[in-house]
Amino acid sequence: MMLPRTFRVDYDHVTSVVCVVGAGLNVNLNRSAPPGSEFFSVKSTATVQYSISPRPQETSHLSPIPLKGNSALLIHMSRAIVFRYYGEKKDVLGRALLHLTAVDRDGVVEKNNANKGSWKWGSNGHGAILLVNCDSERMFLKKLDSEQDQVSKVSDLKDMSLMVLRTKGPAKLPEGYKLTMHISQGDAESVRVFRARSSGVESNSLQKLLFNLFVKEYPLVLSNEVLSQEVPYLGGVSEMKFYVEGLRFPDKDFDGLISINLSLLEPISDGLPETPIFTDTAVFRVAPWIMTPNTLQPVEVFVCCTSDNYQFLKGMRNLVTKSGYKLKICHEYMNRGDRWMQGPDFGYVTRLAQREDVSSLDSFGNLEVSPPVTFNGKNYPLGRILIGVAFPTATKGRNMTKVVQDFLWAQKVQEPVALFSDWLLVGHIDEFMSFVPAPDRKGFRLLLASPDAGYKLFRGLQRDGHGQAKLFEGLKDEEQQTVDEILNDKGLAAENNYVQSCIDWNRDVLKRELGLDDEDIIDLPILFKLVMEENDNNKAETELRAVAYYPDMVNMIVLGKNLGIPKPFGPKVNGRCALEVEMCSLMEGLGLSCTFIDDFASYHKQLGEVHCGSNVRREPFDFKWWNLEM
Amino acid sequence: MMLPRTFRVDYDHVTSVVCVVGAGLNVNLNRSAPPGSEFFSVKSTATVQYSISPRPQETSHLSPIPLKGNSALLIHMSRAIVFRYYGEKKDVLGRALLHLTAVDRDGVVEKNNANKGSWKWGSNGHGAILLVNCDSERMFLKKLDSEQDQVSKVSDLKDMSLMVLRTKGPAKLPEGYKLTMHISQGDAESVRVFRARSSGVESNSLQKLLFNLFVKEYPLVLSNEVLSQEVPYLGGVSEMKFYVEGLRFPDKDFDGLISINLSLLEPISDGLPETPIFTDTAVFRVAPWIMTPNTLQPVEVFVCCTSDNYQFLKGMRNLVTKSGYKLKICHEYMNRGDRWMQGPDFGYVTRLAQREDVSSLDSFGNLEVSPPVTFNGKNYPLGRILIGVAFPTATKGRNMTKVVQDFLWAQKVQEPVALFSDWLLVGHIDEFMSFVPAPDRKGFRLLLASPDAGYKLFRGLQRDGHGQAKLFEGLKDEEQQTVDEILNDKGLAAENNYVQSCIDWNRDVLKRELGLDDEDIIDLPILFKLVMEENDNNKAETELRAVAYYPDMVNMIVLGKNLGIPKPFGPKVNGRCALEVEMCSLMEGLGLSCTFIDDFASYHKQLGEVHCGSNVRREPFDFKWWNLEM
Repeated sequence: MMLPRTFRVDYDHVTSVVCVVGAGLNVNLNRSAPPGSEFFSVKSTATVQYSISPRPQETSHLSPIPLKGNSALLIHMSRAIVFRYYGEKKDVLGRALLHLTAVDRDGVVEKNNANKGSWKWGSNGHGAILLVNCDSERMFLKKLDSEQDQVSKVSDLKDMSLMVLRTKGPAKLPEGYKLTMHISQGDAESVRVFRARSSGVESNSLQKLLFNLFVKEYPLVLSNEVLSQEVPYLGGVSEMKFYVEGLRFPDKDFDGLISINLSLLEPISDGLPETPIFTDTAVFRVAPWIMTPNTLQPVEVFVCCTSDNYQFLKGMRNLVTKSGYKLKICHEYMNRGDRWMQGPDFGYVTRLAQREDVSSLDSFGNLEVSPPVTFNGKNYPLGRILIGVAFPTATKGRNMTKVVQDFLWAQKVQEPVALFSDWLLVGHIDEFMSFVPAPDRKGFRLLLASPDAGYKLFRGLQRDGHGQAKLFEGLKDEEQQTVDEILNDKGLAAENNYVQSCIDWNRDVLKRELGLDDEDIIDLPILFKLVMEENDNNKAETELRAVAYYPDMVNMIVLGKNLGIPKPFGPKVNGRCALEVEMCSLMEGLGLSCTFIDDFASYHKQLGEVHCGSNVRREPFDFKWWNLEM
Repeated sequence: MMLPRTFRVDYDHVTSVVCVVGAGLNVNLNRSAPPGSEFFSVKSTATVQYSISPRPQETSHLSPIPLKGNSALLIHMSRAIVFRYYGEKKDVLGRALLHLTAVDRDGVVEKNNANKGSWKWGSNGHGAILLVNCDSERMFLKKLDSEQDQVSKVSDLKDMSLMVLRTKGPAKLPEGYKLTMHISQGDAESVRVFRARSSGVESNSLQKLLFNLFVKEYPLVLSNEVLSQEVPYLGGVSEMKFYVEGLRFPDKDFDGLISINLSLLEPISDGLPETPIFTDTAVFRVAPWIMTPNTLQPVEVFVCCTSDNYQFLKGMRNLVTKSGYKLKICHEYMNRGDRWMQGPDFGYVTRLAQREDVSSLDSFGNLEVSPPVTFNGKNYPLGRILIGVAFPTATKGRNMTKVVQDFLWAQKVQEPVALFSDWLLVGHIDEFMSFVPAPDRKGFRLLLASPDAGYKLFRGLQRDGHGQAKLFEGLKDEEQQTVDEILNDKGLAAENNYVQSCIDWNRDVLKRELGLDDEDIIDLPILFKLVMEENDNNKAETELRAVAYYPDMVNMIVLGKNLGIPKPFGPKVNGRCALEVEMCSLMEGLGLSCTFIDDFASYHKQLGEVHCGSNVRREPFDFKWWNLEM
């Protein structure tokens, strides 16, 4: 309920007042009474609702009522009211209904909404939502839509939220009164408001063709430069459309909430600022940045075409076509010469590191997301973001830069889990883990690279008489290795011991933070080796770090039930690669089909694999983020 | 419950392991089994607790159990365990109990606390608290204790929180194992940890005398420069004391929570980093910055001695002595020539404005706090902070700088309310409002300056034949004004109309945000006048702003039931100032005694009054901030 506004009367004058429907007036009778007044009476037309506080004992207000220190007249929405201190007169002229209403979560602009001034998470929550306009409607000279302060295309309006100002009142406001829309200085960094000049403009196709005219049809109302601006009062019963544009995602210093206010200003006298006599507020929450896990259905697959990745492209095309999805090939010149496709493709957000501390851990590939999980009674229906960092105990080490970590934590809806990935040369968590869909249990399995599982497989081959089977057979320029040679390499065994410890540490964190059991995890037979990392800045600080010994099968692309797996070139038994056979047997039980893609020369030798070299746009979650219980 | 740690076994070797009590081990039997293994059995000493997953059908674990893909052995804290895959052997050597525990809210360091790793608000909440060490223990060359990275005095330890590391384990850790304390990079900006070298040091008075030795007794463990450091393992049953020092209050980019971690590191092999096998965490919340309202009992009153405030000092000394409190007089040279004493006195916090947008609204006097209130079912047992800003609808205007506003909002426990004070020349909310204690209702009254109440009083004087009574009588250099002259000044009436509108707008906000009724508010008869504000930067932007017409009685000092009120020098009736009489009559009903203090020349003429020229240290709230329900 809106509290009534304090309203002053002066017994010397007849005063006019504009009264906003729903917002009553509270007249302090004592403060303004002539000195020595002891009684007062009230007279009004029949359409007026009013009450007297404290409630007088007499039933008729026409008889004199004792004037007390706290005597007050409460006027509830009225057409005309007359009351007197010994003969003075007061009129209430006109009335106005003002509602600022945003499109609600369900896409409906309600007539009015008691909750629009606040925002609440959950299925019983309420409040409007706002997208960050981080794509670009332009075909040429591309820059983010949020970086230009004009509406350039009708399609751009679809990235904004509709807000409607409904008025119902006199044909015009009394002299000096005006409507003002305003935002706080803090919110102005995160939002921009445009106005539709008239509601019929969309149907005028001639105007649409004329860009300049078009821009004029959507004038900028509020921005970082203009925190407050008068908006026209159309009069009678009318609606005015506004388009609200989000400019930034939630971040460490921005909780995502934005308030847009509309005030009716009353003039006091020439040269003095007007005072607001009524304010209506609509609250929006900016949609968080959300990642999509492997268990969601793919829509499009993106890969990069380079001078040397013909084999890889051929394999990917087969897999994607077979799976029934679209493959989009980006030419390297469009991708700034970068073959690593793990980056958002349309709609993107950048964080500038404050210091020059950007490392390989700041790449995508080190930023993944789990399928939906439940842990300790807490639901994560959108999964949890997974990032790789240095050990918390490390006195030195590489980390994902702080501004990116802060950004990820600020999104809230996919609360991040920090894993330990600094033991890897490239340092990406997708080098030792992935998720695949499963028909049972939690709907997925966590796949972990496991040197122990690798050694077990190689020992089995040796025991069964395949000690002379060769790794890397058929690859030119690559030294072949027998199973016996691998098992006899004590140094390699120690290195893999260390790698297994590092992965096990992550395994425990994942079990704890995602609520997984051992049955939810599958160990993949993958060996690693340690290489000396060169530290360009400090030669003394070189460290041993891990890379996959053969193509890292866990670094796969997941397209529904079809997996695109780096071809491991393992030892052959009866003409079939023992690693592929093991991989297929582990995945078959889940109804998944394995396609092995040769990325050896083009990606593996450059320390990446299939997953690093591709990107998948997936169907969004059915679950709506605002339904999360926070 | 702590999840067991993944532990690897190798069937070729006998391995040692350090097992932390409470943290079990999970041995994946299949992954490490010799190839082709189909059964396993377990043998252990009687003191060992273990279980097999999935649970075998046989009751005796000595008989061979089928080895499945997910077979696991769970070892719960043990002295020695032996198990075999066809004859191999594994020992568990030694055990350690490690607890990192902070002093809890009740001041007790519990033996261990299941909740210490999290923090929860409310009377049923839990979690340790931490002070910001924002005072200075030094007598000379003062700087904040938080700005020096050493413990300089025993008394400094009282500003820190005690944290205890309890260990119970073997006399020494096996070769290569070590204990490390660590914090995240983000937390390191907000906290520092010192260690007490030995627990008996406090009693060694000789060492206390030797500053250098003393510093060495409290070595710095963690800081912004050192995020991770080894701490000694004392062995046996031992306790080690740590002192945790808060460096900053909650702010826009800091929620106040800090985690301090202790990890036991296991060596892998030479040249490779150790991996943490057990981590214990204590979570602290930094105490917010809290203001004390007028309704709390005073302890000390601070005023400044200047060359021209003898009259004021005399009045204050009378009042304070009569009230039974201590008056502390600061000489102007200590106060940087500033007679305005509204600023924290010991323990202080500064915010640097990012742009050169500091205005008069950034002074204390524009930052007040309400008594405890309840509104719409929400309790504010510590009251709400009140600040003055420009109208939200203003297209220009002065504001409290954003970094200060952000800081105030981040404290959370006294959620701020923004009032409109930019209509005043000085722009401080204490120019139109104050709170006094009351025996009834909500325990206080809100006092508001009211030109309407002032005009009512003056009209009454005129009606009763005192139209020729004079304002400012007895003040030299001040032009006297009669009641008739004041009432005949139409311009002054219009100006006061405007001022009353501005105060009424604030009245409505205060009623709404503090849940007040009209009965909780008392209007004081105070007139204002508008003067032209000079804008040094832009002469064209000069604006009319308000100053009190006579000493602003609402700008008072509240010492329990005694009020120190600016002497208004109002028109006299029968030898008594009519304004003082009215003020006394309004306050008497609340059991409050009024002392009028002459601040005319020294403060009023410089646009401030008693409240601006003094400061009061009050008893803290009985209510503990961590008991707030958030």
